[in-house]
This record gives sequence, C-alpha cells and structure tokens, in this order.
Amino acid sequence: MHRIPVGVLGASGYAGRELCTLIADHPGLELAFATANERRGEALELPSGPVTLVATEEAPVAGAELVFSALPHGASAEWVRRVRAAGPRVVDLSSDLRPGHGANGIPYGLTELNRANLRGAPLIANPGCYPTAILLALAPLIRHELIRPGATIVADAASGVTGAGNSPRAEMLFGEVTENFRAYAAGNEHRHLPEMRATIAALGGDLDLLFTPHLLPVARGILATITVPVVDDFPADLQAPWAEDYAGEPFIVLGHDLPALRDVTRRNVARLAVRRASGLRQPTLLVFAAIDNLVKGAAGQAIQNANLALGLPEPMGLPA
Amino acid sequence: MHRIPVGVLGASGYAGRELCTLIADHPGLELAFATANERRGEALELPSGPVTLVATEEAPVAGAELVFSALPHGASAEWVRRVRAAGPRVVDLSSDLRPGHGANGIPYGLTELNRANLRGAPLIANPGCYPTAILLALAPLIRHELIRPGATIVADAASGVTGAGNSPRAEMLFGEVTENFRAYAAGNEHRHLPEMRATIAALGGDLDLLFTPHLLPVARGILATITVPVVDDFPADLQAPWAEDYAGEPFIVLGHDLPALRDVTRRNVARLAVRRASGLRQPTLLVFAAIDNLVKGAAGQAIQNANLALGLPEPMGLPA
Amino acid sequence: MHRIPVGVLGASGYAGRELCTLIADHPGLELAFATANERRGEALELPSGPVTLVATEEAPVAGAELVFSALPHGASAEWVRRVRAAGPRVVDLSSDLRPGHGANGIPYGLTELNRANLRGAPLIANPGCYPTAILLALAPLIRHELIRPGATIVADAASGVTGAGNSPRAEMLFGEVTENFRAYAAGNEHRHLPEMRATIAALGGDLDLLFTPHLLPVARGILATITVPVVDDFPADLQAPWAEDYAGEPFIVLGHDLPALRDVTRRNVARLAVRRASGLRQPTLLVFAAIDNLVKGAAGQAIQNANLALGLPEPMGLPA
Amino acid sequence: MHRIPVGVLGASGYAGRELCTLIADHPGLELAFATANERRGEALELPSGPVTLVATEEAPVAGAELVFSALPHGASAEWVRRVRAAGPRVVDLSSDLRPGHGANGIPYGLTELNRANLRGAPLIANPGCYPTAILLALAPLIRHELIRPGATIVADAASGVTGAGNSPRAEMLFGEVTENFRAYAAGNEHRHLPEMRATIAALGGDLDLLFTPHLLPVARGILATITVPVVDDFPADLQAPWAEDYAGEPFIVLGHDLPALRDVTRRNVARLAVRRASGLRQPTLLVFAAIDNLVKGAAGQAIQNANLALGLPEPMGLPA
Repeated sequence: MHRIPVGVLGASGYAGRELCTLIADHPGLELAFATANERRGEALELPSGPVTLVATEEAPVAGAELVFSALPHGASAEWVRRVRAAGPRVVDLSSDLRPGHGANGIPYGLTELNRANLRGAPLIANPGCYPTAILLALAPLIRHELIRPGATIVADAASGVTGAGNSPRAEMLFGEVTENFRAYAAGNEHRHLPEMRATIAALGGDLDLLFTPHLLPVARGILATITVPVVDDFPADLQAPWAEDYAGEPFIVLGHDLPALRDVTRRNVARLAVRRASGLRQPTLLVFAAIDNLVKGAAGQAIQNANLALGLPEPMGLPA
Repeated sequence: MHRIPVGVLGASGYAGRELCTLIADHPGLELAFATANERRGEALELPSGPVTLVATEEAPVAGAELVFSALPHGASAEWVRRVRAAGPRVVDLSSDLRPGHGANGIPYGLTELNRANLRGAPLIANPGCYPTAILLALAPLIRHELIRPGATIVADAASGVTGAGNSPRAEMLFGEVTENFRAYAAGNEHRHLPEMRATIAALGGDLDLLFTPHLLPVARGILATITVPVVDDFPADLQAPWAEDYAGEPFIVLGHDLPALRDVTRRNVARLAVRRASGLRQPTLLVFAAIDNLVKGAAGQAIQNANLALGLPEPMGLPA
Repeated sequence: MHRIPVGVLGASGYAGRELCTLIADHPGLELAFATANERRGEALELPSGPVTLVATEEAPVAGAELVFSALPHGASAEWVRRVRAAGPRVVDLSSDLRPGHGANGIPYGLTELNRANLRGAPLIANPGCYPTAILLALAPLIRHELIRPGATIVADAASGVTGAGNSPRAEMLFGEVTENFRAYAAGNEHRHLPEMRATIAALGGDLDLLFTPHLLPVARGILATITVPVVDDFPADLQAPWAEDYAGEPFIVLGHDLPALRDVTRRNVARLAVRRASGLRQPTLLVFAAIDNLVKGAAGQAIQNANLALGLPEPMGLPA
Repeated sequence: MHRIPVGVLGASGYAGRELCTLIADHPGLELAFATANERRGEALELPSGPVTLVATEEAPVAGAELVFSALPHGASAEWVRRVRAAGPRVVDLSSDLRPGHGANGIPYGLTELNRANLRGAPLIANPGCYPTAILLALAPLIRHELIRPGATIVADAASGVTGAGNSPRAEMLFGEVTENFRAYAAGNEHRHLPEMRATIAALGGDLDLLFTPHLLPVARGILATITVPVVDDFPADLQAPWAEDYAGEPFIVLGHDLPALRDVTRRNVARLAVRRASGLRQPTLLVFAAIDNLVKGAAGQAIQNANLALGLPEPMGLPA
C-alpha cells in the first residue's frame, strides 16, 4: 500500500517522539522527516529503523502531505503558518491555535466532539492532555443539559511527568519526584483553562470549572476525578448520557470499574466511569476519566485527526 | 531518666512497626512488649536493638502503664477492654472506638482539636489517616463559620500504599501499583466517612462531605485537595482562620507553598496551604493538607496522645 | 487469512496474560481458549475483546493446533503430557522440561541457539528469563572458544518483579519493593542454574558460572552484567563473535551503547553490548544483555517458537 | 551544652543538604553558615528552622571551628586551602584530596579503616560513596591475606540517583529513570577507581578490581555485589574476618541476611553479608555491602569524621 509522507516538527520532546513511533507503526503513513534543532544529525531509533533528525529550518516540508507540529507553545504558530503556505496540511499539537488562545475558526481536534469539522481539514488544533480527559467526561452532561445550572465543577486531575516535557528541570529529577505527590497551578492558574472554558462555552455549558492539576510519580497517564452537581431528574441509568453520545466510538470505553492509569497507558483510549455520590443533599456525580497523556492526550489523538484530515480510516495505526 | 513501660498490640503491621520504632527513639518511653500472633518468636529489629514478638494472648499487659493497640479493626475493641480491665491506659489505633462507630464518650485523639480531653485520659481513640488530614484542614473553617451553609465539600485525597496495610493482596503487588493511579471507594463508600461526619457534626459544621480516596504509587503520605465554598465575607487574609486556631502548634505548618508528600514523610507534621479559586461565581477556597499516613496519620499522633495521657511533654520523642 | 487456533494454560499469571495479549495481536494465531482455575468464569480483557477464562480441566484442548503451558513449575509437565496425547503441539513455559531438569531430548527453545530443532517441533521447552539473557550473551564466546579455559564467569543480573509472578507475597508488596534493591538466592542457589549449566555444557563450554540475581523496583526487564575472562588473543573487534553468530537475527540487537531496560521493555528483543575492562592483568570482557523478562524472556520467545513449530514466519506477531 | 560552630560550603546539592540536616539534629554542632552561590538569599528549611544561604565568597569562615566542603570536584580544593588558611579544620567531601588524586598525606576519612589518623586531624578527605561500600567489604580480606593473589575482584554496584547530584540533566528526569536500569562507566571508567585502587594498595592488596556501577530507579542507597576468589584455606567461619576487624564498630552491621537498601537508608550504617559460591572449582566468596550513599557514603561519614577531628564522641548525632 502507498504510504502518505508526513513530517514531524519537534521530534525530540516526549510527544514528538511518541508521534514518530506511532507513524512508524502506521500502515498508511510514512515518516518523511523529523526535526529537532538541538539534536540535529542524531539518529532517532524507531521500530522501523533509525531516522536522522534535521533542523526545523532544513525540513523538506513541501514533500509531505501533512506535518505534525510538536514544537513548543509560542514557537509553533509561526511554523504552522510556514508549512501551510508550502502546501501540507497541519496538525498542531501546541496550544497556540486552540480555543481560548485568540485564534478563531481553526477546527479543534477533540475528535469525538468535533469529527464533522475534522474530515479533510487543512489545519487542526490538537487538544491538550488535561482538556481531552476532562472535556470527554463533561461533554455529554453539557449537551444533555444535566448539570445543575451555574454549578461549580471540581476537576482534580493527576498527570505523569511526561506531561511536563523532557527539558531538564531540577524539580523533575527522579530524586525529586519519586515517593512524592503535589498539586501545582492551584486556584485555576493552569494554562489549559482557557481551552477548557472556551470549549465548554461552545458546547453551551452554564458552569464554572475549578481545575487543580497534580504531579504523579509515574511516567505516563492522566486521571481526572470530576465532581458534578447534577439536575434533580438525572436519568436512573447513570451511564446513559455517555453511552448515548459515545455509542460506537472506537476509542472511548465506558465501564463500571473505576479506571486506572494502567488500563490506558500506551493506548489511544479514554476510559470513563461514573458514580453517584451518596449522603449529599444535592444530587452529585463523580465522573472519572483516564487517558495516556502522550497517546489519546497528544500523539495518538493527533494521528486520529490526521487520519480524518487525510481521508484514512480514523482508527488506522492506533493501539486501542 | 526513668522510662515509662508501654506495650504494642499488633506490631507486625505498618502502623505497629512505626510505633515500635518511635517508642525506641522516645526518651520517655520503653517498649515493654510487642505482639504479633503470626510472627511470634521472631525478632523485630529496632534502633534500640531487637525485640522478640510475642502472641497477643501472652503479652504481659499489666506491666505496662499504657498500651497501644494497632490490632485490626473489629479485633481491637475486645483487646482494648481486656487491657483496660488489667489497668493500663490505652491508645487505640483501630477505628473501633472512633466517632461514628457506635462507641460514645471516648476521647478522640485528633490532638490539635481535642487536647483538653486527652490529658490524663485512660483511653483514647486515635484518628484515621484520611480524617486527620481532612479534619485538620476543615476545622478552623467550621469553627469560624466560614463555610457556605449547606455546601458540598469535595475532598479528593491520595494515599501511599502503607495505608492499606501489609497483608499480601494481589492488587498491592509492586507490579500492579507502579506506574499506576486510581480512585477507590468512590461515591462516599470509604469506611473513614462516619468518623469524619461525626467529627464535623460535633464541631457544628453544616456541610456535606464528598470524599474520594486514591491510591498512589508511593509508600507513604497523604495529600488531600479540598474544595470549600465559603461565605462571601471571607477574610482578606486567607490564612487567618488556620493561623489563629493553630498558633503555636508544634506539629502544624501553615505555609504559602503547596505542600508535597516529601515535606511531611517521616515527620509528625501536617502541612496546610490555602488558595483562592479564581474565575468562579461562588467564592471558593482550595485547602491542601499533607501528612505522613504512618506518622501524623497513625503512630506519631498515637505517641502525641500517649504523651498527653501520661503527663509527658506533648512533642516528646516526635520528629517534627 | 486463516488464523491457527491456539490455547493458553495458566492465563492469569503475568506470562500467561502476556501470551494472551500477544496472541490477540498476532495475525496468524487465534486464541481458542485460556485457562485459569481460580479465576474461571471471569473475563480476561484483551486488545481483541474479552475472553472468558475456563478451568484447565475443561479446556477444549483438542480443538487447538498448539497449546502454550504457562502453568507453574511442577504442575506443567503432567498437562503437557495430556495435551500432547490429545494431539496439539506444545510450547511449555515452565521449567519442567528444560535442560538440566531430568527430561531429555526435548528441544530447548532458546530460538537463536537452536532454531534447526524447533521448526515443526511437536514440543518445545521455552527457556527461563535469566537463562535467555545470559546464554544469548555467552553462547558466541563459548562457540568461538574465546573464554579462558576453566574460568569463572560472574553473571550479576537484576530483574523486575514480574519475574516472580503475581501470587500475593508480602515481600513483593509495593511498600516493600519501592526504593529498595537486594540480591537473592546468592551463592548459586537459583533454580535457573541447572538450565544454564546444562546448556553451557551442551555448547561445549569449559567454565564455571556464578549467577547472582537481584530484585529491581521495576515491573519488567532483566539486565545481566557478565564478567568474562577471555583468551589472550581475543579479536581486536570486540563485537565480532556476536556480530558473526547473530548476523541477520531479527530479535538480537548488538549495539555500542550500554543497554537499558527501557530499550527492551514490551519488545521481543535482546540487546547486547560488550566492553573491555581496562587495568586488569587478565584480559577480561564485560558483556551486557537486556531483555523484557515477559517478552523475549517468556511469552514473546514462546510465540517465536510457536511460529517455528507451526511453520509460520518466525517474527510474525512480535514487537521488535 | 555548648555547640561547636561549623559551616557548610555547597549546601544546595544533595550531600550538602543532608549535611545541614544532620548538623541541625546534632547535639554538639551548630550550623554557623551554609553557602550556595546560585541560591544565595534563599532559605534552607531545616529541622531546627530556616537558614539563609549565602554566597561562598561571603561565608564567615573564620567563625567556624570546622568547615565541611560539599563543593563540586575540581572547585573544592582551592576553597579547602582558603578555609585552612583562615583557621578552621576541614572535612572535604569532594574527590579532590582523596587517595589516587595526586594529593599526598591527607588523612582518608574511611573511618573504620583509618580512625587513628582522623582524631584531631585538621583536614580529612571524606571518601566517595562507592569506595565506602566496596572498601569496607574488602579491607578485612586484604588485611588477613585471604584473597587469592593476583585475583580479579568483580564489584558490580548499583546506586540511587542522588549519587549523581541534583543538577538538571535530561537523563536523570523521572520520566527517564523510572522503570529503567542500566550500567554506566563500564570497563573501569568510573572516577572513583583511583581512590579504590590507591586504598587497596595502601592496605597491601595484590588484586585487580573491576568495578561496574549501575543506576537504580531509587533516590538513595548503594548495594555492592562483590565476587572474591579466595585462598584455599579460607576460614570455615565465613564471617570471621569481618567479625574480627569490625568488632565493636557502631556503624557496621555484619548479618546473615542479604542486605537491602531499605535496611540502610537514612542511617549511617554499612550492612555486610557473605556467601560462599557453590559449584565452582575455585573457592569464591560473594560479599554484599549496602549503605545510604548520602549518609554513610557522604554526609553521615563526614559527621563521623568531624566528630573525631573535634574530639567529640564518634557516634554523636548520627542515626545508626
């Protein structure tokens, strides 16, 4: 089968490397180039063999049909513009073009919520990892108008360290993270909030979001524990909103068991579970969402979106 | 100095071993005996040298001035009764005699909230680990009537594996816990809830508690992330309620930085921090509390209570 | 394509589960049944969907063309006999039929050393994890007669916890293994020694092996650090013996960089590297071998052997 | 009691921080100053309260009776000279003045091997972490002439990440170290070798050392697994050489059980165990040594040496 040539800008970070690995295993894609300015000339070992990293300036962009940008936030937008000018489609993994960041009209690649706008799209803003988990959990409740109007949604989430990238920082050394756990950006200070708020507004949600991320001593994975005050006449079948909205979705698993990171790591899947809180005066649900931050939360979802943009079968090349 | 003889029932579990270690380093206490039915005859290695474990039935209870019971929930109450009948004071680390468990009038050993009733007490019910963290965080807000009446408090907490004891269970094997994270007992199903609810009621709180515990891939430590809707006229100095109530407390550290497990492990301390949530319609605080589940959440607090019961200086022998 | 029906005896252990997962992803095999006496009736979640576990007694053995036995050592041999009597070929992952264990003439499935005897074989004894790593490292040196005659080979190896299985044992709890490291079975007491000695003898080696295993706080992987006194006229090209013997091998990677567990986990590969020790009077090499104990050290190699037994391409279905 | 004022140069690294913590808990020492150029002005939190870090240039060196240098290798020697010129005694934790590094006549602070030269010493070269473990294990065998003359000693050792310091390096990020294990500096390339060789020579050893360090996914601790060909008439009581040489040593524990990192972390102790290798033609021992690299392997031993230099009881302030 003919493989479509694609490129990766920023292949030395965790998400970029994961992308290259997924592309190497993808039956419909071929890695035309991978860039990493600081490691140019070095070989990136992939299942399909080594690939020599080039500088971003030197990437043969025009030879690709689609380019993934895993460049840092702030640096990506300009490169996206340049690549688009040269022709290829782009899936941008940075936050530069996501909802809430000033850009308008760029399809948001939270695939299950926005698929119609992603087919054949020339440019897609791939979601952040926390927003992927939290918005997939909340969207059916918003759409079905099941959240108590004006309620505060408490989203406490915990992520593995790869979510913070692989630039050397003292606080991310093994000796600092092992046997440790802590919150950060508490009080709604995280840079993923605008993306979540804009998407919630676009879905028509009347709610306040309080998002508190935590750093886990694991390499991969996000678990979001989300508390949702719901309307009094919430369906007796707790899972109904998600079961209905996500029926047939290949990458969403709605289960009874509480999801664990182990259930989702290295897979392009979001696992969801719901519990009713007992003993409270207000009807309240707990919604749990688990993803691999590097797969469904980044590179896997980017492939899912690239498949849609290129007209390939959406699940192609993705570990479910 | 004369050391007061004390005993430990149930010394082979994590809390019991921690107790024995703390007693060995305590300048005012002497370990008269330590029991462990399944390991009777074996030596327990302590900083002060080895101690031979005896069966609980054979423990020379009457020779101790105070006995700690670290026996399992359900089994402890009967032994507490027997020890009391023989004379010694008791600090019971099980949940059998705690608030919300049917027993009445037994002083609850959440030391900072109940010190007056613990001095010279013949019997003290030592708190659970999660309740210690969560109630120390909430008590000043309840006492100062700063919580929005009828509000739901969301307490998402994560604990290291020693909170689950050291009985062999497949789900607690290293291969299952490493690189993993998950909630459990979700929906207000945890056995520590009655203890928290009864204490909140005793403090006069008009609130609903939603408590969701999680299992961390670490050995020790609990971090609670607590979301509290507060009254409109909350003090401008966010920390004031805790600063006032806990002024001079040797084992409570109120800081600006978000507490991490690393800050508290192996120390008899609770670290607290407060943040105001931005961007919400309702004024809402985040309160963070970190403790070592085996120290301030179990054995350390038990020593703190034993010091009070025996008339010793409260901080004696405790790593702060 | 027609998929060949295969079965797995003992699917609830780590190796058995890994086998089922690999079979689910294998384009030429179909999982006809999976047994687990204590979990009969439960569903085993696989990438291809759930499979209901059955009791070993009830397994439809005759409907399979090949059966993998991942039953415990001691219990496996009798089941291998029964399955063979019913017709199917068998790959036995236990130690019961391996060299050095009393059985004779059963092909030893250290694939790269014994391929000719594995093609079409009705019964294969799959190697242990430590022997796989250590024998792949040593075999070229033995065959090329490059080890100093009569020398002692020091093989210090470290394994992740899955090598010890998933039966609950207190010493394997997360709380006991995290932040820990220790040797075990020291002084040549490990049950894998007979297998290694018998294979070394069969290869014609005149050497003494001193094998010391260690327990690592990781889930998967073995790294063996092997010190080998060599002959005075060892080739100037240190890697030559391995490069020659393993030329074209799809699952052996001979590199300059020292192998790390990360390089091999979840892949059916053995990574080898060689270093000359400086500053010693006797010429001495260090040979490093890394494998995933559950893949190349167990289930992956079992698939490799099954492919040979069934006449399928050897690398089929295996992540390299 | 009067506390002797001491200072710490280089207090922001792992060893420097451990030193400050040990000094804070030491009944005979008082921390007069702690330096850290890049963090000058920041507070170092200690059990005794916060200490403000100063630049090394600004340290009130002359006010201390003893100064510990935990400055980097290469930078330390010059500061040691300056401090000595100002008067105070010095314990230097860097490798600059250790045996094998060109300096002569400076007492080597491997306390148990060299105590007589450390009492009242104005300057002590504190040993490296690996040398501490390996030399304590080997010294009795060398002194009693029990090693087969000219033999190669294989010392495979594994260390936690704090041995590599806390400067940010990509390969030490949590995401790179967790679930990983690898050797480094293989082939006798480690910078601790000259120190070990010089000390072995000074003890009269006729042996070759092959030392291979490994990086463990733990924060603290070193385990050395040492293979020693011994003389034919080795004592029947395997432990005799160590039992005799280390009789009464407060910080050496010779046990039957194989030592684990857990047995030694946060304690100033070296645990040793010995095994005879079975099935070899040459009589061979395995000697195991475990220490905490930051305590007995660095800061703890430095305190032990400072106690001797200052005339304090050797075990004062040290957790055994």
